[in-house]
Amino acid sequence: MAYQAPLNDLRFALHTHGRLPEILALPKSAGLDDETVNAVLEEAAKFAETALADTNRAGDLNGAKLVDGKVVCDPVIANAFNEFRDAGWVGLRAAAEFDGQGLPMTVAAACEEMWCSANLAFSLLPMLTLGAFEALNHHGSDALKHLFMPNMATGVWSGTMNLTEPQAGSDLAQVACKAKPLGDGTYAIDGQKIFITWGDHELVDNIVHMVLARLPDAAPGVKGISLFLVPKYWVEADGSVGAYNNAYAVSLEHKMGIHASPTCVMAFEGARGHLIGEAGKGLNYMFTMMNHARLGVGIEGHAVAERAYQHALAYAHERVQSRSISSGSHEPVSIIHHPDVRRMLLQQKATLEAQRAVYLQAAAALDTAESHPNPDAQKQAQAVLDFLIPIVKGWSTENGTTLTNLAMQVFGGMGFIEETGAAQFVRDVRITAIYEGTNGIQALDFIGRKTASNGGAVAKALIAEGRAVAAKLSNEQGLADKLNRALNLAEESVDYVVAQFAGNTPDFAAAGSLAYLMQFGFTLGGIEMARAHIAAGKALANESEQSLGEDFYRNKQATARAYIDLVLPQVLSYHEQVLGSAATVMDYPLSALSV
Amino acid sequence: MAYQAPLNDLRFALHTHGRLPEILALPKSAGLDDETVNAVLEEAAKFAETALADTNRAGDLNGAKLVDGKVVCDPVIANAFNEFRDAGWVGLRAAAEFDGQGLPMTVAAACEEMWCSANLAFSLLPMLTLGAFEALNHHGSDALKHLFMPNMATGVWSGTMNLTEPQAGSDLAQVACKAKPLGDGTYAIDGQKIFITWGDHELVDNIVHMVLARLPDAAPGVKGISLFLVPKYWVEADGSVGAYNNAYAVSLEHKMGIHASPTCVMAFEGARGHLIGEAGKGLNYMFTMMNHARLGVGIEGHAVAERAYQHALAYAHERVQSRSISSGSHEPVSIIHHPDVRRMLLQQKATLEAQRAVYLQAAAALDTAESHPNPDAQKQAQAVLDFLIPIVKGWSTENGTTLTNLAMQVFGGMGFIEETGAAQFVRDVRITAIYEGTNGIQALDFIGRKTASNGGAVAKALIAEGRAVAAKLSNEQGLADKLNRALNLAEESVDYVVAQFAGNTPDFAAAGSLAYLMQFGFTLGGIEMARAHIAAGKALANESEQSLGEDFYRNKQATARAYIDLVLPQVLSYHEQVLGSAATVMDYPLSALSV
Repeated sequence: MAYQAPLNDLRFALHTHGRLPEILALPKSAGLDDETVNAVLEEAAKFAETALADTNRAGDLNGAKLVDGKVVCDPVIANAFNEFRDAGWVGLRAAAEFDGQGLPMTVAAACEEMWCSANLAFSLLPMLTLGAFEALNHHGSDALKHLFMPNMATGVWSGTMNLTEPQAGSDLAQVACKAKPLGDGTYAIDGQKIFITWGDHELVDNIVHMVLARLPDAAPGVKGISLFLVPKYWVEADGSVGAYNNAYAVSLEHKMGIHASPTCVMAFEGARGHLIGEAGKGLNYMFTMMNHARLGVGIEGHAVAERAYQHALAYAHERVQSRSISSGSHEPVSIIHHPDVRRMLLQQKATLEAQRAVYLQAAAALDTAESHPNPDAQKQAQAVLDFLIPIVKGWSTENGTTLTNLAMQVFGGMGFIEETGAAQFVRDVRITAIYEGTNGIQALDFIGRKTASNGGAVAKALIAEGRAVAAKLSNEQGLADKLNRALNLAEESVDYVVAQFAGNTPDFAAAGSLAYLMQFGFTLGGIEMARAHIAAGKALANESEQSLGEDFYRNKQATARAYIDLVLPQVLSYHEQVLGSAATVMDYPLSALSV
Repeated sequence: MAYQAPLNDLRFALHTHGRLPEILALPKSAGLDDETVNAVLEEAAKFAETALADTNRAGDLNGAKLVDGKVVCDPVIANAFNEFRDAGWVGLRAAAEFDGQGLPMTVAAACEEMWCSANLAFSLLPMLTLGAFEALNHHGSDALKHLFMPNMATGVWSGTMNLTEPQAGSDLAQVACKAKPLGDGTYAIDGQKIFITWGDHELVDNIVHMVLARLPDAAPGVKGISLFLVPKYWVEADGSVGAYNNAYAVSLEHKMGIHASPTCVMAFEGARGHLIGEAGKGLNYMFTMMNHARLGVGIEGHAVAERAYQHALAYAHERVQSRSISSGSHEPVSIIHHPDVRRMLLQQKATLEAQRAVYLQAAAALDTAESHPNPDAQKQAQAVLDFLIPIVKGWSTENGTTLTNLAMQVFGGMGFIEETGAAQFVRDVRITAIYEGTNGIQALDFIGRKTASNGGAVAKALIAEGRAVAAKLSNEQGLADKLNRALNLAEESVDYVVAQFAGNTPDFAAAGSLAYLMQFGFTLGGIEMARAHIAAGKALANESEQSLGEDFYRNKQATARAYIDLVLPQVLSYHEQVLGSAATVMDYPLSALSV
């Protein structure tokens, strides 16, 4: 099943929503120019389309297995990883001083979309490795950094995040895994972790586990949790790899999707580890990396839906069935000519382009927050980033299920047959709404820390920005009016959420929290699609600015309109649910929910 | 995983929405009384809860396989079918004169919900058998009826519907399967059929295939299609079973769900068959049975979501994670205390009760249309039934995916693990939006034959009935106002759809057709939940009418409120999409949807 990287749309979106010129002017982008970015995108696209896309179905059919204590992956997955590593893709956004490529997140995000579209399960291996890499980079000692990070950035070793335990899922305060000082500055780690993505495998020489555990004298709750680095094979101070370290996969989970990715129950049995940073700060350290991780998962949800859309689009062109209801002819036509099929495709396409815009906006905020020379600009970007993260994660992954199901529906009866491939996207994408903080957790973060804690200021600044965009948007077909209405409804919801926290009834905001997150996601998508409409209009007005071809800009305007007419109306329901859910949910008698 | 039949809600819904007293007064219900109905429901519940519910996971894990030309099912499925047949359940709604139980559809529908909740894949076997039984009953000769129907009603033989071919899915006019007269009044059938549910298996002694095929001199298109009865083993005129008849499964499909149900590619190689009714009327005959079949699939979508909801509800009570955000205590609580989890459960419960109300309303219309002594009442009921069918099918099965995904989300990370069971419901229910006419086909039927062809009269009559209900509904919390607003929006959508057909732009209605179907589904659900609120209020006002216990009626009122506050607002988005989709979908440049 072919995958074609949406290179033109990525190029447009990087400039229009990812503010690429500004990102290339940041200190972290030194030496990087538009041409190089373009070359990176093209190479990433080529890799995704050729080496990776074809491994997706094989990886699903022949999922990872635990055989005689070893995790066995389909050979096509192992081969693809070798190629991926040899081409230098693992460390694309890893710090250059530790042998990464040091590209800004904005550019890396575009590449990650392509890899996740090509093979989500595969892409988790480098993604988790970079997560562990970043943890070390932010909080590890120089010695540990130099000992581990170069091999991680180059993909010689991989990394994992060992957080969850059976009783400690959303609530990591319950972590019980134990760490005992060995007297030589290292620690013995004991305990089990569950849901560890790519927890063990044979694709690399060593695996660097980041493990949350408690020291013997640790305080209860959150403040007693520390972060440890536990390698699968011990690494001596001189870099030589030593003995096996009693960190292994007990079993693999049988999952609905992402079969190629081994999801491990991990056992640590006196496994030797290094403390990262200070004792008791483990959870804080996790939080500092959360934005990266959640942005990544949002991109995953989006990327799988993009692939599913392409797959459905191809089928809609190819499959001939039934006459057109309006043409008068009795000849059957390809199903893309049926209005409901076209509506399904358009709903996917418009939502996808809006999601791409918003995740690139977030990525640009991340780069700016990390690297802008002006501290005020950094701070402002950080606030925007923090606000956008639960949206990118929650909104793109809720949509992930909706959109992949629409894609499957285009296939009719064939959609339910696994060989068609549509089902895999529905199955694979489902995890993205769950892991890295369920979307309920995202929504809770969104109403509290991201909205109420700043009195709705960040939300309102984005709404104000949206109004400025709307003011420049054509009002043909009422486009500007429809966007302004959505902005007004968003503002009402912000006020409602802020008022609930102020009035000490956060439960009331929480009851409608997911609706509020979704409402804001669709609204931001509307702002960005309006921005795209305006940018496309400028290009159309000036032949010299049509680097992607005139049609691209015409189509972008049509898609922006489709978004506003077909997708944005969802805010009407969500807005009503935000304001109407609370009492009905909180007053509802618990006895009526007995089993 | 336990299943508890929602007996009290079924009892309430049968009276309130299924108009049971009127149904029991129909000629077809002669000899049936409330007490017997209750006994049937209790026995059906017991069977579903004990014999059937536990087979669901085994049937999923060990799906049907083709081994040496024979379809092999998991033994628990075969055993369950033996019990089911021996208890007389197969022919529950089959005509009594052919050894069925002859129960009205209204009662049978409630039983079918329970069986589909317990094991959807299993329930398809008796459901398809009854489909073939009904085809024969409506259109077969007396000789054929007596030869085949008693063994079908008693489950000694099963039945199938052989319609689809690779090029003939939604468009059955393309059927190419051939029938050649053998000169003795029988025919030789040649061709392949795909997607044949329970097409072959060893659970019964013989299988009665209903096959669409073309006679040598047949007209092209729809009018050349005839219906044939092709038994797996030939049945002699004296009822004795003779030779194997060259009708067999070539292969089984690998599906996303309903693994226990063998979905066959069937080959007919000179298989001998009987013509049913007149030549060239095959498709007409299928249409006469469509309402039954589509009602059944709507119930399927609903029933799987009911089971998923129960499963999630149990987990929400059991799983302890995170403190309450409002209580001030740091003790973790069971997750049902978290507002977003409670919202998810409530959204499921309220939608499910509305769906139950609407399918029972449709079932009552079916019984009335079939059996009311007054022809005008029959005709009126038929119009309502025809209108409700695409809603029950389309709305309940679209919701099926939404609701089972909500149930899975309640499980957090555990939801993605197959052992938990939540994933199976998501996978199983997905077929219901596809087969028996995709929901796109339902939506097309709904705008055209069901709305525009009668100038919106049936839709408006239901809206008027809704207004009468709203007039009796309490306006506490604005309930009546909210329902009236939904009714007004529904009327606008009806007018819009009718106008597009009148204006010769049916494409414009088709572009928003699924939104229109969903809008009407949620609106009808609102009317019925309002009716339930009123009925519950009456019971609460009179202690002697509280046969289900006071709490039941209080909870029903709370659920009706939850429906109106939390679920009904979805009509706002759909309404806007109905009116706004057309131009954006039809104007969209096809070149922007190129691959």
